[in-house]
Amino acid sequence: MPRKRHTTPIEADLGFAKLDLDRLRRRGQPEVVYGAGKTAAQLEAIFRALSAAGQNAFATRVCAEHAAAVRQVFPDAAYNDIARTLTRDVAPLPRRRGKVAVLCAGTSDMPVAEEAAITAERLGARVVRLFDVGVAGLHRLLSRQAQFADARALIVVAGMEGALPSVVAGLVDRPVIAVPTSVGYGASFQGIAALLAMLNSCAAGVTVVNIDNGFGAGVAAAMINRLRGSRANPETAKVTRE
Amino acid sequence: MPRKRHTTPIEADLGFAKLDLDRLRRRGQPEVVYGAGKTAAQLEAIFRALSAAGQNAFATRVCAEHAAAVRQVFPDAAYNDIARTLTRDVAPLPRRRGKVAVLCAGTSDMPVAEEAAITAERLGARVVRLFDVGVAGLHRLLSRQAQFADARALIVVAGMEGALPSVVAGLVDRPVIAVPTSVGYGASFQGIAALLAMLNSCAAGVTVVNIDNGFGAGVAAAMINRLRGSRANPETAKVTRE
Amino acid sequence: MPRKRHTTPIEADLGFAKLDLDRLRRRGQPEVVYGAGKTAAQLEAIFRALSAAGQNAFATRVCAEHAAAVRQVFPDAAYNDIARTLTRDVAPLPRRRGKVAVLCAGTSDMPVAEEAAITAERLGARVVRLFDVGVAGLHRLLSRQAQFADARALIVVAGMEGALPSVVAGLVDRPVIAVPTSVGYGASFQGIAALLAMLNSCAAGVTVVNIDNGFGAGVAAAMINRLRGSRANPETAKVTRE
Amino acid sequence: MPRKRHTTPIEADLGFAKLDLDRLRRRGQPEVVYGAGKTAAQLEAIFRALSAAGQNAFATRVCAEHAAAVRQVFPDAAYNDIARTLTRDVAPLPRRRGKVAVLCAGTSDMPVAEEAAITAERLGARVVRLFDVGVAGLHRLLSRQAQFADARALIVVAGMEGALPSVVAGLVDRPVIAVPTSVGYGASFQGIAALLAMLNSCAAGVTVVNIDNGFGAGVAAAMINRLRGSRANPETAKVTRE
Amino acid sequence: MPRKRHTTPIEADLGFAKLDLDRLRRRGQPEVVYGAGKTAAQLEAIFRALSAAGQNAFATRVCAEHAAAVRQVFPDAAYNDIARTLTRDVAPLPRRRGKVAVLCAGTSDMPVAEEAAITAERLGARVVRLFDVGVAGLHRLLSRQAQFADARALIVVAGMEGALPSVVAGLVDRPVIAVPTSVGYGASFQGIAALLAMLNSCAAGVTVVNIDNGFGAGVAAAMINRLRGSRANPETAKVTRE
Amino acid sequence: MPRKRHTTPIEADLGFAKLDLDRLRRRGQPEVVYGAGKTAAQLEAIFRALSAAGQNAFATRVCAEHAAAVRQVFPDAAYNDIARTLTRDVAPLPRRRGKVAVLCAGTSDMPVAEEAAITAERLGARVVRLFDVGVAGLHRLLSRQAQFADARALIVVAGMEGALPSVVAGLVDRPVIAVPTSVGYGASFQGIAALLAMLNSCAAGVTVVNIDNGFGAGVAAAMINRLRGSRANPETAKVTRE
Amino acid sequence: MPRKRHTTPIEADLGFAKLDLDRLRRRGQPEVVYGAGKTAAQLEAIFRALSAAGQNAFATRVCAEHAAAVRQVFPDAAYNDIARTLTRDVAPLPRRRGKVAVLCAGTSDMPVAEEAAITAERLGARVVRLFDVGVAGLHRLLSRQAQFADARALIVVAGMEGALPSVVAGLVDRPVIAVPTSVGYGASFQGIAALLAMLNSCAAGVTVVNIDNGFGAGVAAAMINRLRGSRANPETAKVTRE
Amino acid sequence: MPRKRHTTPIEADLGFAKLDLDRLRRRGQPEVVYGAGKTAAQLEAIFRALSAAGQNAFATRVCAEHAAAVRQVFPDAAYNDIARTLTRDVAPLPRRRGKVAVLCAGTSDMPVAEEAAITAERLGARVVRLFDVGVAGLHRLLSRQAQFADARALIVVAGMEGALPSVVAGLVDRPVIAVPTSVGYGASFQGIAALLAMLNSCAAGVTVVNIDNGFGAGVAAAMINRLRGSRANPETAKVTRE
Repeated sequence: MPRKRHTTPIEADLGFAKLDLDRLRRRGQPEVVYGAGKTAAQLEAIFRALSAAGQNAFATRVCAEHAAAVRQVFPDAAYNDIARTLTRDVAPLPRRRGKVAVLCAGTSDMPVAEEAAITAERLGARVVRLFDVGVAGLHRLLSRQAQFADARALIVVAGMEGALPSVVAGLVDRPVIAVPTSVGYGASFQGIAALLAMLNSCAAGVTVVNIDNGFGAGVAAAMINRLRGSRANPETAKVTRE
Repeated sequence: MPRKRHTTPIEADLGFAKLDLDRLRRRGQPEVVYGAGKTAAQLEAIFRALSAAGQNAFATRVCAEHAAAVRQVFPDAAYNDIARTLTRDVAPLPRRRGKVAVLCAGTSDMPVAEEAAITAERLGARVVRLFDVGVAGLHRLLSRQAQFADARALIVVAGMEGALPSVVAGLVDRPVIAVPTSVGYGASFQGIAALLAMLNSCAAGVTVVNIDNGFGAGVAAAMINRLRGSRANPETAKVTRE
Repeated sequence: MPRKRHTTPIEADLGFAKLDLDRLRRRGQPEVVYGAGKTAAQLEAIFRALSAAGQNAFATRVCAEHAAAVRQVFPDAAYNDIARTLTRDVAPLPRRRGKVAVLCAGTSDMPVAEEAAITAERLGARVVRLFDVGVAGLHRLLSRQAQFADARALIVVAGMEGALPSVVAGLVDRPVIAVPTSVGYGASFQGIAALLAMLNSCAAGVTVVNIDNGFGAGVAAAMINRLRGSRANPETAKVTRE
Repeated sequence: MPRKRHTTPIEADLGFAKLDLDRLRRRGQPEVVYGAGKTAAQLEAIFRALSAAGQNAFATRVCAEHAAAVRQVFPDAAYNDIARTLTRDVAPLPRRRGKVAVLCAGTSDMPVAEEAAITAERLGARVVRLFDVGVAGLHRLLSRQAQFADARALIVVAGMEGALPSVVAGLVDRPVIAVPTSVGYGASFQGIAALLAMLNSCAAGVTVVNIDNGFGAGVAAAMINRLRGSRANPETAKVTRE
Repeated sequence: MPRKRHTTPIEADLGFAKLDLDRLRRRGQPEVVYGAGKTAAQLEAIFRALSAAGQNAFATRVCAEHAAAVRQVFPDAAYNDIARTLTRDVAPLPRRRGKVAVLCAGTSDMPVAEEAAITAERLGARVVRLFDVGVAGLHRLLSRQAQFADARALIVVAGMEGALPSVVAGLVDRPVIAVPTSVGYGASFQGIAALLAMLNSCAAGVTVVNIDNGFGAGVAAAMINRLRGSRANPETAKVTRE
Repeated sequence: MPRKRHTTPIEADLGFAKLDLDRLRRRGQPEVVYGAGKTAAQLEAIFRALSAAGQNAFATRVCAEHAAAVRQVFPDAAYNDIARTLTRDVAPLPRRRGKVAVLCAGTSDMPVAEEAAITAERLGARVVRLFDVGVAGLHRLLSRQAQFADARALIVVAGMEGALPSVVAGLVDRPVIAVPTSVGYGASFQGIAALLAMLNSCAAGVTVVNIDNGFGAGVAAAMINRLRGSRANPETAKVTRE
Repeated sequence: MPRKRHTTPIEADLGFAKLDLDRLRRRGQPEVVYGAGKTAAQLEAIFRALSAAGQNAFATRVCAEHAAAVRQVFPDAAYNDIARTLTRDVAPLPRRRGKVAVLCAGTSDMPVAEEAAITAERLGARVVRLFDVGVAGLHRLLSRQAQFADARALIVVAGMEGALPSVVAGLVDRPVIAVPTSVGYGASFQGIAALLAMLNSCAAGVTVVNIDNGFGAGVAAAMINRLRGSRANPETAKVTRE
Repeated sequence: MPRKRHTTPIEADLGFAKLDLDRLRRRGQPEVVYGAGKTAAQLEAIFRALSAAGQNAFATRVCAEHAAAVRQVFPDAAYNDIARTLTRDVAPLPRRRGKVAVLCAGTSDMPVAEEAAITAERLGARVVRLFDVGVAGLHRLLSRQAQFADARALIVVAGMEGALPSVVAGLVDRPVIAVPTSVGYGASFQGIAALLAMLNSCAAGVTVVNIDNGFGAGVAAAMINRLRGSRANPETAKVTRE
C-alpha cells in the first residue's frame, strides 16, 4: 500500500543513531535498543521517535537512573529493575505461543535470565521460568523436569562453573541455548570459565551465546519457537551435493 | 512390546566404552561414536555391537587408516574422507525433511562443514550446501541468497576472522548456528579469533558451538529442523512469573 | 634561514615533557599531545609553549573537565566532545587534498572514528565519513560504495566481532587500515575479539592498529594519502637481492 | 636401631637423580619416580637402586617402549598400559584400608583415573572405580550413588566441560578432589576449560589438582583416607587467635 | 519425629533466594550465605528466616555497610571486619575437635586466611593460625614447624608467587589445601600467578581452590578433619576393577 | 570487447576451490594461491587452470616436496626455497615502479621478509631488501638509513621483542607496515610478544599485519606504492561531516 | 655487643605486620614498607615503631592522602609525589658510591623510574637519571650515550612496546635491568606487551622485573653496584662439576 | 695496532648471517651463535669463519645430529650433550674469576642450568653448580647454604611452580637471576607458571629472564661477576635530578 509507506519513513536519523523503522514491516518486530553507553537524553529521543512511528520501544541494559529520566517524559514506560529493560508499548505485542523454558543456576544469574525471558516473550514466545536450580542441588532440577522437558527451546543460564546446560541437555531432546554469566570471582574470569565449559559441553544440541547475553539467547529461542512444522520433501533438492 | 525389549539389551559394555543401545528407542537415533582417540580395534568392536543390535553406526573424526581397517571387516561401511565420518547402516535412515543450509567461508573449512551436513542429514534434515562463500568476495554470497534464506536453520562455518555468520544472520530471520574452525595461522590461535568474533556477533539470532564442532552444529540444527509447528496457547501458563 | 632557527628553540623542556619544537620544520607538522594521564595544568603549559613557538596545538584523549580548564585560559581553543580532541590553531592548517574514507560499524565506534578523521584532516587529508554501516545491515554499506571506493586510503573502525574491514577490503582495491574498538562486552574482551578478527582478515591489503587507536590510523592514512605518484624505475636498483 | 641405618644409605646419587632412600622410613612410602622425560636406561638404574635398597619401585608416565626395556632387565616388573605405570615390588605393599572412590566422566579420562586409583592403592587405600559416569547421562551416576557416597575421599576425573565434580560434590558430604583432564578439543584448551570449571565449582568441599595429575590426586586422597579419627579437644589451643 | 518435621519447612522461598532449611538436618550444618552481590535488605531477610527456623546464620563476603545495617536489626549479630563474615548464632555451634592449621604468607593475605579459619571453626575444627610466614623469611616458618606438623589438614594461603604451599607440603605428611590470593600487582594478574604456582606444586598432597576462596578451603579442611579413623577392610570390595 | 569475455570464463570450479579468473581483468592481478593445507595434486590442478587461462600462477607457503611435485609437471615453475613461493609465469609481470623497502631484524626472519618482498615485486613494486639489521646492533641500521628513508612504503619484519618497526618509524616519515614473526621461544609465544610490541608502537604511522604474514604486508605495501599523486580538492566534499 | 641487642628487639609485632628490626644489623638496611593496601594508621604505626628503634623508615606506593596523614604526626617525613615514596630518616643514609643509570622512555614512565632511582640511592648507589629518551626519537638517546655507558648497572623503564632496554643493552656492556610499566592502552594489556618484549630481548645481559616494579629494580641494581671487585681464583673450586 | 685491524675484517657476511668479528676486540668475547633453526651446514660455515679469524666458536641449542656433523669436519669441536652447546676453541679462554652459583630445582632443569653455567664460565666466571635442590625437600638446599651464600651472582633455575628463586633470595644478599624452565605439564603452560611466580617474587633482588634462557642468565651473571669494585664518589654527579 504505497500511501502508508509514504507516511512511515524507513529510517529515522537521530544523529547519534539511525533507527530502522522499516524493520517492523520486514521482520515483524521493531529494532531493539542496546541501552549500555547511551545517555538518558538519547534513550528519550529514541523512545520518542519509535512512538511517533507507532512502534513499540524496547531497550535493554538500561540503568535505573536513565529509566527514571525517560519515565518522567513517558510515565507509561515500564522498567524491569531485575532485567534492566525499559519498554513503552503503543501497539499490541505479538500473541505468545509455543514454549520456551528459561532456567538459571543461581539467584545472581537472575538478571540475565530475566532479560532472556522478557526478550523471548516480546518476540512471541510463551516462557516458563525455572530459577535457582543449579547442579550442586540436583534434586531441585530433577523434580521439575516435567516443566521444561516439552519446551520447544531451552535457555540455560549459569555462571561460575557453567555446568547446568550440560546436565539439562542430557535430560531433554530439544535445542539448548547456553548463556554464561559473569557471576563468580577469581578464576571465573568474569564468565570465561562458564563460557568455556558450555562450549565444551559433552551433551549434543547445546549452542552458546556471549557472556551475559540474555537478549541474544531470547532472540534465538524465539526464532526457533516460532518455526512452523517441517514436512518431508518429496524430492531431493537439486542444489544438494554429497 | 515387552518381548522385543527383552531381546535388545539397553547397554553394551565393551570394557573401554558403554554403548547406550536404548537410545534409538528413547530418542529415535542410536548413539554417535566420537572416533578421536579410539583405536581401530575399538571402532570395529563398537560397529560390531551396534550392527548386532540392528542399529546404524555413525562415527566422526575417524582417520583414513582406522577407516580402512574397519572396512576390511565390514566392507559395506562407508567412509567420507572429507568429513572423516565412517558409517554402516543396517536399518533405514530417517526420511529427510525441512531444510538446513550449511555455508562455509573457504575450502579449508569444508571438512567441518561437511561433518555438520552429514550429521544433520542422518538426523533427518534435508541439507543445502553452499561452500566457499566468504565475505571477502561478497557477490558470491549475495547471488545465492535465495538458496539459504528459507532454511529452517543455518549452519555457518568459518575460520580466520569468522565474519561470515554475522553477515548471513543480517540477511535472514532464522536461527544461525556459527561454527568457528581452526583454519588460519598466527593470531588466529587455532580458531580463537573466529570463536570470539562469532560470540560477539552484532547480528541477533546467532549461537555458537566449539571450534571445529561440525557434529554439534549438525545435531542442534537437526533438532530445530524437526520441531513441529507451535500454536498460540489459549491461556498463560501458571508457572510463569514476571 | 639561519636567523629564524635561532629565534625558535628546537626543544621546550617543561620538566614533565620535552616538546620537539623542531618537528614542524622537519616533518611539516608539530608534535601531537597524548592527553591521557596529563593534568589540566600540564595541558595548559604545553598549549602555551606551542602557541609561543607559533605552532598549532593538537591534543587527543582530553576529558571534558581538562578541556574546559584549558579553554578558560585559551578561549579560542576548540574541543570536539565526540573525538575528545582539543586544538588551538595559531597558524594555517595544511590544505586538504586527496581522499581518505573513514567508516565505522556502530554509533559506539564514533569517538574512535572521529579521532581518526580529525587527525587525518589536520595532517592534510580530505576525509569522507560513513558511520553506522555495520555488516549486520549490509545494504547500508553497499548502497554507499561509490562514496568510499575511490579513496586513496580507508580507515575502517569496528568493535564487537570486527568484521567490517574484511567486507570493505573485499569491495575496494586500496589500502584499508582497520581499527578495532573496545566496544562490546563479555567475550569481546575490551576489543581483543575485534583486534584478532582484523589481524586474521581473509581480504588482502588490510593492516591493523592498536585497539581504539584512531589517532594512529589517521596518521598512517594521511601519510599514504599525501604520497606523490610513483614512476617506473628505468633500471633495477643495485641494492636489490633476489 | 643404629645398625640398620648404617646398612641402608639415605640417598642414592645416580648422577641424573638423587634418590631419597630414607623416605620409606620417614614417611612409610618410597619415593615415586616421575617417568616423563627419563630415558629407559635412567628408569632401569632407578629400579635397580630401589630394589637394591629393598624398596618397591613405582614409576608414573612411563611409555610402552621404556616399560618393555625395563622389563627385559626385570621381567617381574609390571606395566599397566592404561595408567602407564611401571612397578616392581620387592616388599609387601601396605594393607588397603578405608575407601577412596575414583569416578571419571568418559572413557578418554580413564588413563588419568587409573593413575589416581593405582597411586591411592599403593599408598594403602581401598579404591572403588566408577568410570564413564559423565553428566550428560545423569542416570548412570545417580544409580550408583550408594557405591561412592560412603567413601572417605572421592577423586572425580573429567575433561571437556569438567562438570562432574560439582554434581558429585552436591551428592556427598566428603572431600572431593577434582582432576581436570586434557581430553577435548578446540576451546577445551588442553584441559583449561575443565580446570576453570572445577576451580569455580559451586559445590563446597571441592579441591583441584593440575590437569591430568592423577598421581597428585591419588596421593592427596590416600593421605586423607589414612587419617585416624579426630577427637574433641578438652581445651582451646593457646596459639589460636580470633 | 514427624511432628517436628512438619513445623520446620524444608525450604524458605524468599523470592530472590531459596533457603535450604533441611540442610542442617541432612548435613549437620545450615546453608552458608554468600554475601557478595546481595543487598543489606536481602541479608537481613535471610538472617531473619534462618533465625526463625532456629538455625545459625553465617554469611561471607559481607561489606562493613551491609553488616552495620543488619546489626541495626539484629544487634547480637557479630561482624569480623578482617574476614568480612557476619554471623548470628541462635543454637550452639559444633564442639571443636581435631586440628586444622591455617598459614598465610603475608599480612595482605590475612582476610582470606581468616575467612578459612572461621569457616573451619564453625564446621567443628580446632584451628591454629600462623600468619605472615612467607618463604622470603624462611626462619619464621621453620621455627614454628611444631605448631603445624601434626595438623590433620593444613590450609596454606599465599598471593604473589604462591610458593608457600610447596614449601609447607615438603615439611609435612598431611593434606595441604592451597589458597591463592589476589594479592600482588602487574604479572600477578589478580592471583593467576599464585594459582598456577600452586597447581604446579612439586610437592605431593597439595590440592588447590579458587583465588581468594578461603571459605571453600575451610569447608574442605573441616570435612577432612572430622573424618573418623579408617580401618583395614577384611575383604576386597566386589565393585573394584583393576 | 564481448567476444574476448566469452572465451575466458570468469570462474574455474575445481571442486575443492573456485578460481576467480576474472580477477586479473578487474584488479590487474590474478588470484594468489595460499598453499598451506593444499595437496600437491591440488596445487598442480590450480597451476594448470591458471596457465590454461593465460594467467600467471603465484602460490605462497608451498613446502619443498609439493613444489618438486608441481615442477615435475611444469618444469618451468620456479620455487624460492627461502620464501617458500612457487610461481609459473605465462604472461609478462607488471613493470616495477616506485620503491618499497623490506627490512628484517634477524636471519631467522628472512623467510617472512622474502615472502613480503616477492609479493610486492610481483604486484609491481621495486623492492630494496635490508636484512639482519636488528636493534641490538643499531649501527647496522643507522648506517643504511639512506637506502630506506625515501621508500614510498616500508615493510619491517621482526620476531622476539619486535622493536625494529618502532625504531625505523622514528627515522622516516612514510607508512611502516610491521610484520611480527614467530621467531623466538618461551615468552615469545610464537610471535605474540612481537605482535603486541608492534601494536603498541610509540611511533606514529605504524600498522600491523598477522604473525608471519609477509604476503599481506607485501600486498598492502604494493597498494600504497602504486597510488598516483593526490591533488588538493578545489572544494570540500559535501558528504563530509565534522 | 650483647647489651645493645637486648635493648633493640629483633621483631616488632604490630598485629597486622611483623617488623624485622634485626634486618638493619644483618643486611645493613631496615625493612622497606610496601604501602599499597595499608591504611594511614598502619603506616603511622610502622613509622613510629621504626623510629623508636632508631631506624630509617622507607615506604613505597603511598598515596597522597596517606602521606599527608602520616606527615601530620611526623612533619619531618618526606613525600615524593612522583615516586609516591614516604621516608623518615632518623639515622644517616649510606654514602652513595658507584653509578647506576636510570633511563625511561616517556614521561608517563617517570613514577616507576623515580621509584627505582630513589630506592637505589637509599641503598647506597649514586644515580644518573635520563628520562624521556624513547626509541621513536633515537637521537635523544644516542646523544646522551656518554652519560650512561659507564654505569655499573642500568635500569631501563618503558611501557607500550617496551623496546628501550633492547636498544640500550646493544649500546653498553653492563647489566641492564628492564622494568616494564603499565603505561599504554588497548593491546598493551596493562604492561604485558612491554613485559613480553623485554623477556624476549635479542640483546644479551637484559634481566626483567615485574610490571611497574621500580623498587625491585632499584634493589637489584644497588646490589650489583655495591659488589666489590672480583679476583681470579688461584684454583678451581672443588665443588664445581662439568 | 692498525696493522692487525687491517688483517682482521670486522664483519664476515655468510649470506644467511653477518658475523660481527670485531666484537672480540670491542667487548672481549666473540659473538655467540644461536644454533636453533640453523642447519648443520650453516653451523659449519660459521665455525669455519670464526676459526679462520682466530676466534673461539660457541654455539647454543645445537642438536646432537648437527653437532656430530660439525665434528666430522672439526674433530676438536666439543659437544656438551646436556647443555647442547658446541664449542671449538682456537685461542685461550678468559681466566675464571669471582664466583657465580648456579642452582636448579630438579634434574629436568639441568639442561638449562648447564647452559647457564657453561656460558658464565666461558665469559670468565668461576661457577659452582648445585643441582636438584628444589623446595619440596628444603633440607637439601639449607645444608648447602655455605656453598652459594658468598657468590657474586646467583642463577636459580626452576620449572613447575618456580618457587626456588624466592627461597634462595631470602637466604642471600646478592643479585639472583631467576630462570623459569618449560619443565612441567598441564597448567605449567610450558613455563608460564614458573615465569609468573618468579616475576612476582616477594624477595627483593630477583630479576628474571625468558623461559629456558640459560644463556641469557649466564651472560648477565658474568657481566655482574666481572665488575670491579665501586668507590664512593667525592661529589654528587651534576646530571642527577631528584
